[in-house]
Formats: sequence, C-alpha cells, structure tokens
Amino acid sequence: MEIHSYDFALQNHINMLTVNQTFRKIRNMEIRGALDIAIVSANSLLGVVDSDARDTKNLVAKLNFSGKRLKSARPTAVSLPNAVDYILSLANKNRNLEINEFRKKVSSGIKKFIEEQNNAIERIAEIGSRLIENGDIILTHCNSDTVTMMLKHAWDNGKRIKVVCTETRPRYQGYITVRELSKHGIPTTLIIDSAVHYAMRELKVDKVLVGADAVSVSGDLINKVGTSQIALCAKELDIDFIVATESIKFSPRSIIGAVIEIEERNPREVVGSKKFRGVTILNPGFDVTDARYIDMIVTEYGVMPPQAVYSVLKEKFGWELVEK
Amino acid sequence: MEIHSYDFALQNHINMLTVNQTFRKIRNMEIRGALDIAIVSANSLLGVVDSDARDTKNLVAKLNFSGKRLKSARPTAVSLPNAVDYILSLANKNRNLEINEFRKKVSSGIKKFIEEQNNAIERIAEIGSRLIENGDIILTHCNSDTVTMMLKHAWDNGKRIKVVCTETRPRYQGYITVRELSKHGIPTTLIIDSAVHYAMRELKVDKVLVGADAVSVSGDLINKVGTSQIALCAKELDIDFIVATESIKFSPRSIIGAVIEIEERNPREVVGSKKFRGVTILNPGFDVTDARYIDMIVTEYGVMPPQAVYSVLKEKFGWELVEK
Amino acid sequence: MEIHSYDFALQNHINMLTVNQTFRKIRNMEIRGALDIAIVSANSLLGVVDSDARDTKNLVAKLNFSGKRLKSARPTAVSLPNAVDYILSLANKNRNLEINEFRKKVSSGIKKFIEEQNNAIERIAEIGSRLIENGDIILTHCNSDTVTMMLKHAWDNGKRIKVVCTETRPRYQGYITVRELSKHGIPTTLIIDSAVHYAMRELKVDKVLVGADAVSVSGDLINKVGTSQIALCAKELDIDFIVATESIKFSPRSIIGAVIEIEERNPREVVGSKKFRGVTILNPGFDVTDARYIDMIVTEYGVMPPQAVYSVLKEKFGWELVEK
Amino acid sequence: MEIHSYDFALQNHINMLTVNQTFRKIRNMEIRGALDIAIVSANSLLGVVDSDARDTKNLVAKLNFSGKRLKSARPTAVSLPNAVDYILSLANKNRNLEINEFRKKVSSGIKKFIEEQNNAIERIAEIGSRLIENGDIILTHCNSDTVTMMLKHAWDNGKRIKVVCTETRPRYQGYITVRELSKHGIPTTLIIDSAVHYAMRELKVDKVLVGADAVSVSGDLINKVGTSQIALCAKELDIDFIVATESIKFSPRSIIGAVIEIEERNPREVVGSKKFRGVTILNPGFDVTDARYIDMIVTEYGVMPPQAVYSVLKEKFGWELVEK
Amino acid sequence: MEIHSYDFALQNHINMLTVNQTFRKIRNMEIRGALDIAIVSANSLLGVVDSDARDTKNLVAKLNFSGKRLKSARPTAVSLPNAVDYILSLANKNRNLEINEFRKKVSSGIKKFIEEQNNAIERIAEIGSRLIENGDIILTHCNSDTVTMMLKHAWDNGKRIKVVCTETRPRYQGYITVRELSKHGIPTTLIIDSAVHYAMRELKVDKVLVGADAVSVSGDLINKVGTSQIALCAKELDIDFIVATESIKFSPRSIIGAVIEIEERNPREVVGSKKFRGVTILNPGFDVTDARYIDMIVTEYGVMPPQAVYSVLKEKFGWELVEK
Amino acid sequence: MEIHSYDFALQNHINMLTVNQTFRKIRNMEIRGALDIAIVSANSLLGVVDSDARDTKNLVAKLNFSGKRLKSARPTAVSLPNAVDYILSLANKNRNLEINEFRKKVSSGIKKFIEEQNNAIERIAEIGSRLIENGDIILTHCNSDTVTMMLKHAWDNGKRIKVVCTETRPRYQGYITVRELSKHGIPTTLIIDSAVHYAMRELKVDKVLVGADAVSVSGDLINKVGTSQIALCAKELDIDFIVATESIKFSPRSIIGAVIEIEERNPREVVGSKKFRGVTILNPGFDVTDARYIDMIVTEYGVMPPQAVYSVLKEKFGWELVEK
Repeated sequence: MEIHSYDFALQNHINMLTVNQTFRKIRNMEIRGALDIAIVSANSLLGVVDSDARDTKNLVAKLNFSGKRLKSARPTAVSLPNAVDYILSLANKNRNLEINEFRKKVSSGIKKFIEEQNNAIERIAEIGSRLIENGDIILTHCNSDTVTMMLKHAWDNGKRIKVVCTETRPRYQGYITVRELSKHGIPTTLIIDSAVHYAMRELKVDKVLVGADAVSVSGDLINKVGTSQIALCAKELDIDFIVATESIKFSPRSIIGAVIEIEERNPREVVGSKKFRGVTILNPGFDVTDARYIDMIVTEYGVMPPQAVYSVLKEKFGWELVEK
Repeated sequence: MEIHSYDFALQNHINMLTVNQTFRKIRNMEIRGALDIAIVSANSLLGVVDSDARDTKNLVAKLNFSGKRLKSARPTAVSLPNAVDYILSLANKNRNLEINEFRKKVSSGIKKFIEEQNNAIERIAEIGSRLIENGDIILTHCNSDTVTMMLKHAWDNGKRIKVVCTETRPRYQGYITVRELSKHGIPTTLIIDSAVHYAMRELKVDKVLVGADAVSVSGDLINKVGTSQIALCAKELDIDFIVATESIKFSPRSIIGAVIEIEERNPREVVGSKKFRGVTILNPGFDVTDARYIDMIVTEYGVMPPQAVYSVLKEKFGWELVEK
Repeated sequence: MEIHSYDFALQNHINMLTVNQTFRKIRNMEIRGALDIAIVSANSLLGVVDSDARDTKNLVAKLNFSGKRLKSARPTAVSLPNAVDYILSLANKNRNLEINEFRKKVSSGIKKFIEEQNNAIERIAEIGSRLIENGDIILTHCNSDTVTMMLKHAWDNGKRIKVVCTETRPRYQGYITVRELSKHGIPTTLIIDSAVHYAMRELKVDKVLVGADAVSVSGDLINKVGTSQIALCAKELDIDFIVATESIKFSPRSIIGAVIEIEERNPREVVGSKKFRGVTILNPGFDVTDARYIDMIVTEYGVMPPQAVYSVLKEKFGWELVEK
Repeated sequence: MEIHSYDFALQNHINMLTVNQTFRKIRNMEIRGALDIAIVSANSLLGVVDSDARDTKNLVAKLNFSGKRLKSARPTAVSLPNAVDYILSLANKNRNLEINEFRKKVSSGIKKFIEEQNNAIERIAEIGSRLIENGDIILTHCNSDTVTMMLKHAWDNGKRIKVVCTETRPRYQGYITVRELSKHGIPTTLIIDSAVHYAMRELKVDKVLVGADAVSVSGDLINKVGTSQIALCAKELDIDFIVATESIKFSPRSIIGAVIEIEERNPREVVGSKKFRGVTILNPGFDVTDARYIDMIVTEYGVMPPQAVYSVLKEKFGWELVEK
Repeated sequence: MEIHSYDFALQNHINMLTVNQTFRKIRNMEIRGALDIAIVSANSLLGVVDSDARDTKNLVAKLNFSGKRLKSARPTAVSLPNAVDYILSLANKNRNLEINEFRKKVSSGIKKFIEEQNNAIERIAEIGSRLIENGDIILTHCNSDTVTMMLKHAWDNGKRIKVVCTETRPRYQGYITVRELSKHGIPTTLIIDSAVHYAMRELKVDKVLVGADAVSVSGDLINKVGTSQIALCAKELDIDFIVATESIKFSPRSIIGAVIEIEERNPREVVGSKKFRGVTILNPGFDVTDARYIDMIVTEYGVMPPQAVYSVLKEKFGWELVEK
Repeated sequence: MEIHSYDFALQNHINMLTVNQTFRKIRNMEIRGALDIAIVSANSLLGVVDSDARDTKNLVAKLNFSGKRLKSARPTAVSLPNAVDYILSLANKNRNLEINEFRKKVSSGIKKFIEEQNNAIERIAEIGSRLIENGDIILTHCNSDTVTMMLKHAWDNGKRIKVVCTETRPRYQGYITVRELSKHGIPTTLIIDSAVHYAMRELKVDKVLVGADAVSVSGDLINKVGTSQIALCAKELDIDFIVATESIKFSPRSIIGAVIEIEERNPREVVGSKKFRGVTILNPGFDVTDARYIDMIVTEYGVMPPQAVYSVLKEKFGWELVEK
C-alpha cells in the first residue's frame, strides 16, 4: 500500500554498516529519524551476533560493549537506547545457551524487532484511522509520518475528511504536510500558527492529530514547538487531542528521572540573515505537552491513555533499572 | 516626552479636510488607525460647526447629516461612530442655544474631545506603567502603540524589565516592536508565534500586554490573530493578561447586538507567491479573546475589569440606543 | 410583526382594575407572568393618580399606600416591586409640584413605563437576533417568549438556523417551543433533557439561548430547573450561553441580600397518579445558574455581561436602599 | 445472600443451547444483558468442547469457527467478543494437548470463567460497598444491577445512606431503581433528570454511582444517555463519580481504534403517539463520559482508576491484537 | 443592638484633634483601622471648615492644603484618600457659595459622611445576614468586624449556623473570632490554617465569609495572608466566597494603576525568639485573591459582584483622576 | 553517603524481636514509621522461618498464623500488610519445597525484601534528584525523609536550589526540615502555612515536593494535613507537584475498596493548655490530595504517574484479592 516516509534505500545500504560506522553516522546526524536510528542500530548488532566469538559468554560481552558504544553516539535520543537495550536484554536472557543456539535465537529476535519497527507506522495508521470518522475536520501541526499515513489510510477507507495544517514556523514543515495530503486528494487548509484557535472555532475542528519526538513515563509529550499551545486550545474547546507514535519513542530513561532536554536551535532559522541588534532570539525546537491535555496515544500496540506509557515501558522493553 | 506613534504631520494636514474629503480618505483607507479616524472626523465636524448656517436648528441639521455621512464611510470601524456620536450628542444637547453660543460651546467640546484623544495614549502609558514592576518579564504580540509607550514609560521610570515579542506572522509586526524597544534600551527577546507557551514557562513571564482593535460590550477583545491563544497560555500559567487601549475602541454597536466581523485577509500575506494547488489558505486578521481571560483593561480613564466596558460605554459616550 | 405572547386581551380588561382587584388577582395567581404583573400594577396605580385627592401630598400618600399593598400581594415576585418602586420613586421625586402638574407628569411617566414594558420583548428580539449568525445551531430549554421571538426574528431576517429544544420535564413546555418554531418554518429537533450534552457534541451546537425568571445583582440566573446543568455543558464545550430577558426581571431585592427562593412544586407534576410508597419526590421549579457560566444577557437596554446587572439596577430603577 | 438480577431461569434454559441457537437469540436480542451474553456464549462453546472431533486440531478448528460465528451475532457488543476471545485464547494455548486432556483443561477453564462472571456482581457489590460511608447521600441514574447490589450491600452492613434516583427519561428505569431500593428499606428520593444539579447542591450529595454499558481502553464510559452531564455536575461540585461494572464490559476492540457507536433509538420512546409535524426527534440511547470525570471504576478485580483499563484488558483477557 | 468594634471612646477624643494631630497619629499608627482613619480625618477637616477664613476661596485653599497633608500621613492607606478626596470634592463643588452658605453645606456633608461610615458595619451586617441560611456551616479566616457582626446578626435572627475559624498564624486572630462568636452562643470549631480544605469537605462548609483590607478596581481582594488559598479551596468545592467590607476600603488609586503593596512583617511574629541560623523567614501580612474567586462583595451599598467595584468607585467617591 | 533518618539502632535491636514482641511494639506505637514497621515485621517472620517445625506445611501454617497476628497490630497501617503479605505469598508459592530448601529460599527472599526497603530511600533520592534542575525553587511541607534526601542529593550533585518550607502547624515539623537542609548548606526560607500561595507567586516556586503517608490505588495521596491545599495552589500556578515515596506505602487494601481513615488527633496539639470554652477543636492529622493534582510519584521503582499505582500494586506485591 502506502510507501511510508521511512527511507528504505538508506536502510538497505545501512544493513551492511558495522557498529563503528553506525556509531559515526548517528553521532554526526547522517542518520536522524527515531525509527531509522533504531533499525540501523539493531542491524549493526545483528552483525555482531554473526561475528566470530570463542563462546556465548564472549559474544555477549562483545554485544554489551557494542551496545554501550552505540548508545553513547547520541545520549539524548530515545529510540537508540530503547533498541539497544531491548537487544541486550534478549542476549543476556539467553546467555546460557550454546553459541549456535544463541546465535539462532538472538538473530531471530533482532529480525523480529526490526520487522516490528518496519511495520509500526502502517500498524498505527491502520489502528488510528478507525478513530477518524467520516466528515471529521482534523487539525495537525508540523509534518509527522504517523499522522499523514493515518489520514491517508482513513481517506482510502472512504472517510471524507478535511485537514487543517499549520505552516509550522520557522521551517514551514506544514508545507510538506499540506502538499502531501493535497496530492492524495484530501481537502486541506493552510493557516499560520497563530490562527489555530480561530480556525478551531470557525471551522469546527473535531480532532487534533500530532506525532511525537518522545513521550515521558508520565505521559507528557515532547513534540515540535507549538504543540503544547495547540493542546490548550483543544482542551478549551473539548476537541480530542490524539498522539500517533511508535512506542520506540517512549522514553525509558524518564523512569529513572531523566529530564528530556529541549534543544535550542539556530536563531538563523527564525530570522534568516536579518539583523536585530541587541535582540535575543530564542528558538526552541520542541515543547512539552502535559499528559492531562492528551486524550489518547495511538501506537503499534494499540490505543492507550497517556498514563499507560509506564506499563508499556515496563512490559515491552523489559526495562531494567540499571543506570549505567 | 515620548513622541507617540500617532501621525501629527498627517493630523495637521487633515485639520483642513472637509467632511467629504474625510469621508473619502476613510473609505479608501488612506486614514486607517482607530485614533486617526476619530480625530480626523472630529476635525471635519469642527469645520461644519464654523460653517454658515441660518440658525442653530439649521446647523444641527447640517451636523447630523455630516455625521451620518461620515459614519457610512466604514460601517465596521469602532472609533468612527464613537467619535461622531459623541459630537452629535453634544450638538443635540445644546440645540436650544443661540447660534453663536452654540458654536462656542460645541467647538470647545469638540476641541476638548480631540485633545483627550491626543492625550489618551500618553495617559494610558502613564497609568499602565504603574502596573509594571521592576524585574518584570513581559510578553507582547504584534505592534501596539499603547503597549510600546507603556513599556518605554516604565523603563524611563527606572523599571528594569525584559520584553518577549512574537514575530507575529504573517506580516512580522513583531519586528517593529522588538526594534523600537531595543533601540530604547529595553532588553528584548524575539520568538516565533508557536513558542509563546514554551517561552512563558522557560523565561518565567510575569505579564502579557496587548493592544486592541476593538472591545465588545461584554468585555471580549478583538485583536491581532494569535492573541486568544496567548491568553489561554497566560491563564494556564496564571500570568496577568492586560489590555491597553483607548476607550474609543470600545464598541457601542455591540450593545445592540452587533457582532464584530473578523476580516479574512489576502492569502498572499501568508504564502507570498508560492503555489499550493488545491490548498485553501485561511488568513484571518484578528481573533476574539473571551473576557474571562482578561484581567484588566487600561484606558485613559484608568484601569478596569473587562466587565466594566458596559458602564464606560453608557457613561462616556452618552450612547443612546438609536439604531439607525 | 410578531404578536408576542403577552396577553393583550387580558391587558385591556385589566386596564380597568383597581388596586384592590389587582392585588387579589396577583395574590391568587390569576395574573402571573412577570411582564403582566408589572403592567397591571402600573395601570392600577395610574388609576390612583387620577383619583380624587386634596392635594399632591395626599395623592402621594395614597400612591405610597397602594404601592405597599400591591407589593405585599406576592412578596417573592421580582417584577412587582420593580414596577411599583419605579412609579413611587417617580411620584416622590415630583411631590413638590402642584397637583395637576403632578398628575400630568406622573401619568405620563407611568404610561411611558408601560409602553417600554410592552416594547421590551420586541426590542430584545431585535437586538438579540443580531447575535445569531446564519447557519447557527441553537439549543433552548423550556419555553421563553423572549427566546422564541428572537429566534423567529432572526429567521425572518434570513438567518437559516436550526433549533434544538429539550422536552423540559415535568411539564413538557419544550413541546410548545418546538411546535411554535416549527410552525414558523424553523427546523427543530426535540430531545429529552438528558440528551443535552450528547446533542451539543453530536449536532455541534453553537449557542444556548434561555429566558429568565429572575436575575440577581451578582448576575446569577434563576430559570427553569435544568438550566444550570445545560450551562455547565455549554461551558465545557465553549458554547456561548446567552440569556434573553426584560430588565424588569432583574432583582433589586438581591442588592440588599435577599436570597431568591426556589419553589418546590407538586410531586404530582412528576409522577402523576403513580404510587411510590416511601419514596420522596423532589420537584424544584427552578435552579440557579452562576454568573460565571453566562456570556451575555440581552435586555431591552442592550447586550451586557451578567456583572452589569448591578449597574442597571442602580441606574434604571433609581433603586433606593429602603428596606421596609 | 442477595439474588442479583441476572436471570438464572434463563441461564438454566440456555445451558442447553447450541452455538446456532445462541447466535440467533443474541442476534434477535432475546438475550441482551452484557453478562447474559457472555455466559450463554461460553456455555454454548462448552457444548462444542464436548462434541465429537477427530483430534485436538479438529476441535480447535470447530471452536474457532463457532467463536467467529458467535461474535458476528452482535458486532458492537462488548462482552460477546470478550467472552469468546477469552475461550479461544484458552483453546489455542492448549492446542498441543491430547484431545481428552484438552477437553478437560478447556472445559474446566470455561466453567471457571462462567463462575467468575456469575460471581462478578456480588464481588463488585462487596468491594464497592466499602467505599460507601455511613450517612452518605448517593445519586444514581437509570437502573444498574451492580449499583443497586452495592447500595443494598452497604445498607445491609449498617450504613445508613440515602439515595437520589433520576427518573431516567424516556423509559423511566429510575422507577425500577427507586422501588427496588425503597423496598429494601433504603430512603430514596426521585427527581427529574433536569434536577440533578439542583439536587446535588440542595441535598449535599456525596457520591455518584453508575453502571456501564462499555468502557473504552482510554477509560471513557459509555452509559445511559444523561450520564455525561451528571459527571459534569459532579466534577463542578467535587463529588466522587464512581462506575461499578464487570470487567467483561471493558472494550478490547477500542484498543485497535474501534469507536463505540451510540445507538439512536426509536423516537416513539420519547413522544409516544404524539404528533410533531416537521420536528426531528433525536433519541440517543447512550452517551460518552470522558475518563477525566471518573474517579474510580469498581470491578470484580477491585477498584481502579479509569486509566487502568488498558492494563486490565492486556492482563485479564490475554488480548492479542488480531483484527479479524 | 450590637456594639461594633470601632472605638467610640477614641472617636470622641479625636473629634477634637487638629489636622496636624491627626496627621501625626495616623503616621505613627496610633490610629490604624481603616474606618477610624476615615472618620478621624473627616473630623479634623470639619475643624478646618469651622476655622477662620477671609472668604470661601481662602477656606477651600486651606481645606485643599490640609487634605493633601493628611493624605501624606500614610500614602498606602486606602480609606484615607477616599475620605479626604470625598470631602475635598464636596468643597470644590461648592466653591462658588458665599462663605457661610459654604460652611453650612460642607459641614453637613462631612457629618453625613461620618455618620454613614459609622453606620456602615451595621448596615453590612444587616444586608449580609440575609445571605446566610438557617443551618449554614460558615468558614472564616482571621478576625473581621464586618464578618463577626454579620454572623451575630444572623444568629440573632434565628439562623442556627455553625462557624469554622482558622487559628490564623502567626498572630492567632482566629482565637478572638472563635471566642467572640462562642460567647454569643454560636457553635464554633477551631482549626489550624492547613486544615481548611479538609474541614470544608468533612464538615460540608456552605460559605466562606471574609473581610477586606482593600479591594482593587478590578475586584481583587487584599486581605490577611491565607485568604487566597482559602478561596482556591472554596472554588474547587463550589462553596460561595463572600467578602464583607465597607466601600471605604475600595482603592481608588488602583484605577490609576497603583499596585497595592503587600507589607512584609517582622519575622519574630513567626518564630518568636527561636534561632534559625541561615534561614530566611518570609512573613507577608496579606495576599491577593483574584476577583474570579469572589462570588459577592457585601458593602453598605448592598451586595455586588467584584467587577462592580469600578462603578462604585466612580459613582460614590466622585473620584477625579487627579494624580498628584 | 547520607545517613537516612530510618533508625538503624532500633533496627539492630529489633532484629531479635519475636512476632509477639513486634506485635506489641507496633500496637502501642513504639514502632511507628512506615518503613520501620515493614522491616521489623519482616525480621520477626525471618525468625519464624528459622524456628522448629515438623515440615514445610507446618512451617507455612506458623507463618500464616504469625502474619495474621502481625497484621492485626495496626489494621490501618499500609506498610504492615504489604510487608507481611509479600512474605506470606513467597512462603505459599514455595510450600511444596522440602523444609530446608524452603527455609533457604524464603529466608533469602525475606532478606532481599529487607535490603530493598533499606535501599529504597536512597534509590528514590537518586532518581528524584534528576528531576530537580539547577536554579529550582522548591516548596515542601512537613518533614519527609524521601524529600530531604532527594534535595540533599540534588545539592550534592551541584544543583544550586532554594527550598521553601512551611512551618507545618500544629507540630512545626517544618522546623526540622529547614534546619536539616540549612545545615547541609541549602538556602532555605521558612513560611507560615497560610503563606504558601503568596510565596509560590512571589518567589516563583518551580516545584512542590512532598512525601506520603499512603497512596491509594486510584493515585490519591494521604499526607500531612495541608498537603491538599498546597496541591490546589500548585495546580493554579501550573507548578509541578511531585510525591516522593517508597512503594511500600501504596495501599493494597484500597483495591478492595478500603477507605483510608484520617486520624483526628489530640486538640492539645493545636491549643496547648489554652482554654476555649464551648469551642470544638478539629485536629486532623492528614488530608487527601486527589490524583488529578499529582504530576508524578517517585518510588524506588522509578517515576510514574499516579494512575500507575494500580499496576505497581498488582505487579510488585503479587497481591491476591483475599480479603480475610
């Protein structure tokens, strides 16, 4: 069906990357998307599983070492430790197997993990599209793969929706969204970021759909700056606020108290080459939307309230509270 | 002291305008600011007062006719009927005076009205600056004369404040604000419109200060689009939301149920010459901020809660519920 | 235009009623509507003004005596003391006039008052209909003259609205509303009282319009039981909640702390002749909607926020804080 | 102890029903209650377990086929797929057992499931009654077995409570509740649906107790229309809002995004044979109460917050995300 | 009836005080209560009216000079400028009268003003007591004359109320309240300041009644520290929050933007002689309760919503926006 | 590192206590802290494991008997049944082991449990300190080991924080907190309990940190009286409200509907020996903070939203719904 925006060409290429190559590409941001990072890292560890080793113990040690190195490439990423720790936990659980048994079992586990990640967006689109009703007016912000897939899926299932997109200053990712959906046949409206509240009332918006950069254990959403004020508007007007995200973006480190840092980006994104003598330009990339403004999170594991993130993190990633 | 941004050069020129000239300049939007419209109209009626007339009755008739014509130049403006009706009411109250007495009394009333309008912004700045405390972090949106005057007045009185300005898409009036304040020595920070909620929390904003395009009888504020979502953010964080406006912008027609229309402006303001096939572009100029989000309105008559607009309209403009 | 539901036939008849007859008819509830009570009482005092008297002082004494008697007919009514006190205040202000002068002045004042009351509903309909926009979905409760007039007026002005009416248990006054509007050509939907919240969301209701039995000085609304929970639903969904009422229903006695009592009505209205052994049946006629849930009140004096009731009471009824 | 309202006579009869008979009775609504549907379906699958089969594989295939057929009888029911999927999951987990072992294990599992369902209401009553304090004033809506059992259980444990029941238009199920409780000795008050907010304040209601038709994965409650506005009133007055329901009513399909449809019922329920020319009558059977208005859900597994529904669905029904 | 706590003995004495004596006693805080300050100041100006003067012009000048001096005694007091400005405005309005006429008119005006102040508390008690219903549980904070008078008045009128008093750290003024009411026969409960929320729920408090130190033009209340968090608790539980205060405490200077300063008091009030090395002790005397938490203000002019303070200040004190 | 306030000397002594001795010391409140009770009880059951017994069955019976006795010592404690049931569940799961195997396995399980409890506070401090940011202003109430450990841990990690402590009437535990933190070098401010709202605004408090006496299954917090109104203030100002507590304080009995009773303590704590004739003194020890006011709970298992308490209780304590 739909080709989702995750880059398959890149993936084929990176299937062959070693741990060191992967480490470098993540560190210098050649590989950036949360999903890409997870899959490439898993692939490079698959290479380690197939590498020479004296015995299982030795192989597990190599895996642990490689995993630790990978995780250090971008300490604040969310999908990176999730992917690595999932695999390390798999390896450590099977450390008593004979080496060939071990290779077979762990290889197959990693492949299943990669496949699940590959399928996650489509799965989310399928589940999430059921939440969309014929005639819905839906507002979105920025450009999110999960959201656009979900909207196109709903449209393909005959739901005649309309979509309102913010332009999403400073980088205008809303232009991508509006063009992608429009090309798919979906009626779209483009607004400036300041017109969200006006448009919600005037156009009688039914739902807000956004993606995620990360979700904390208490269900707070980290997403493109502007999301949190859209959520406030939605709450005031009792409009459903729905997050669509792969569970790989749930942050396990937030369980141990890690605060997700908000990146402040280059002021040039905001003002280009214009001169503003003595003026500070503050350009945060993201903001935090409190869990109480979120009605549902749609993941590949289904729909859940934001407060269920804790359970998912515990169940799905077998996260152990080991802190270094 | 401060030169406020109202255009004195224009004013001198227009002192000589007849009612017909004024009518045309307002209709074709050569004269646009709420304050300019009020003063120019009053001036042109002053001309009528001094014109030939058989007797007082005849002069009052001429004034009524001229006023009606002026009001028809821009039926949705707020300051226009306010100014004209104020003067007509003055004339009608004195209709029993002998013509010279009448001319003297009404002329002097009109001049006082004009002077009050001229002084209004400075008066607002003086009053409003007292609400600002040393060390305050203040956020503003768009570019408002009353707000910038107030901030500069506070700064001149030794209050070391910082000001956060939104860029105010699509026309970037925030650039004007940030440059004007910065030039005055006030430390400023520029943000995109989507970063309001983030900046309020991160920079610990103390107050929001905005101007007004109009204020309805129930205290609802019509101002630059984006204002209403800033007000929601301020309420969530319990930040004072203060409106600074000349009372000439209070809408008497809202007493008789008139709904203030929100102008939808040219999509080109938003996307320039970029092509978006099949995409609707919605570009509202203003939005409505509900009275319950407004803590105070600062006018030349002092500070008041938004619910007092009804009283001011009744008291100050001697508004009679005449609807045609 | 529209014949409003105030009973002209009754009025003609009662023009001839003496104070004593009026007193009895109000006490035994032959005359009940707030407007009827006000007009009939004013008419009977008009009779007193024309009656024999030694001098003005004597006539004022008769008026004061008659007024006091009338007010005692239904101590909890709101329009009764409003009407009587308005007239007594008129009389007392003119007590120094010679008797014929006095008769002329006070008669004309009373007639003007009656005329204003007669015109109030139409005036409210005219003003309020401007608040209604083409395409609006409007929900109403019970059966209110001001509301139905306003809706029909809006319809007649070409606004294509739809109206949702609650059945309004236990006496099903919603049936009257739905039939009256439907007959006028307005598309209507009937729902049970429990379906308000569902219908608001499902049908995307834009405004709630209700009448009033009384409004207190702090802007709280006393209206048909069920109104207050409709207001809660409207607030949650940010739907405008508008009250349409003659200002004669504003309660001056609430200024001096009088609490408006909620009448508990006959349980038979609820259960008819059905037997419920040992079950208490609670049948309140009205409930109280807090001012913070009310966006606007439309009166014959125009639109106002609920907090302006204090000003109106002070200004319009020249209410003196005389408590006995 | 208490005879709960679940129909044992019916159950004995249906113990003998085949899958086909069960299918028909569910489809034509002879069997309707959520609990009845679950138990009857389980019973009919018990018959399949005992039926002839070549081997375990064949028997599992028959069960899967029967289950699928049963589920198609009422696609929107909640307890039906819950019961069937629970049993199919049990069967599939044991598919490697020898056929007699399989029959023994699965039969006993189904019987335990049925017994648990049978005990659920009593268990809920026992747990929930502890939440009720001596002297409590409790408001309920419609007629719910779990709620009435809980109230009677509390009363039998010496808690002197009073209960306020809405009449619950259009079918007056409140009459059943009020009579049942009153007969049990509990002091009751009957009110119209519009008097909820009034009664809560006037009678100082302590808690609201309602049943459920379904509960979604995000903790939203689907229950008799009117419930959601009662929840709003309870929140405004900070009254605990408690749902008492068997976990069989938790909707697993909402995990995969299924929206629970609200049935619109026959207008005749509302207006009987009365004629309303040109009037639409909207008669929804249920409405949706958002999780944020619900303080606790009492199930046979204990008390939980609405956000825990996700965990229960995952844990208790071993729900696999198989979508057809 | 009741002797209110205003000190009559003091008043008699101070009747003879000159402006200079009054100035000193106010400045060194011998005279402190808002009401005392108002009355003493008015009395000393009465002395000026009776003093020698060449003519009216000279007398008005003396009054203006004296008034200015008096106001400088405590620039932050609220009742002081209110009283003085009221009298100066009276004098200036009559400046064209012949001197004896002037003395007669202004003297009588001042005496009426003093009498009104003297009667204000009783008047408030009378009005406010009507808001209290039989059986009410009322919570109060600190010790306020208007509140205790109102409660005793209600009790004397047969209303069987109960009163909950906070101890009011650090100076335990709640002890005075509880003893005064208890002595009057009213059942009282004493709680620590932290137990307000608990007591409101447990004892089912109906109303909160507090006094005022000042009320700003936007209806915000300045009162004993702790009041604002009591108001939050009351709002959460939908308990009426009522302020009882003489209108002399409304702050006219807040109209021109003056911010009411919160006095930070001696840390010894909090910790006595205990030593806390390196610990800062913050001891604010008052806090600010936002108008949106206040349901009603009871003054000698009747009940009003907090938003009506603007109107009262404009009407009652003839306040001119003279700022120096 | 830090010596936490749990009393090791006491612990060594009580290691030797028998079940009977432990029972008595808990009953007469010689042992009181939630953690102490848990550890001492576990220790005394360790003694039972090592005691003579015919066989495993006999030993399990002894353990069950001892556990039941211990739990009866303080039926309302939370950590007591948690600890005992954890151990009994361990014993019952291993009832089929041979007696020496059983002793070894269960002893080691109990020791691990004790060690975990011993480490819990430090673990919480470590996790929670990550939530604290450099420059934070933190408000706390009463004196909580977990909170003070967390604050000191953050300080030791170089976070320059300031802490605001309430004095915490009636027993002034805030004095302990302020002295302990101050001695550690942390800048502290002491306020009266009534000044919380004022201090939050004036000092721009960033976070509230409190401990817990118990947490119910729906995430409601039982803590020192005053906590719930601090939470209301924090919500109004959007300040994070964080609870730091060992999971042993989560109440499993609340799953089966048990309501946590609020102890009313001796009035003498409030008024000492002062006499208040006829005055009731209400002195609750604790109050209940609703889950919706709590942003996060920090436990030794990590950070979680209050709604996750249900999952933790189910997972960690293997709680079976056995009710006697």
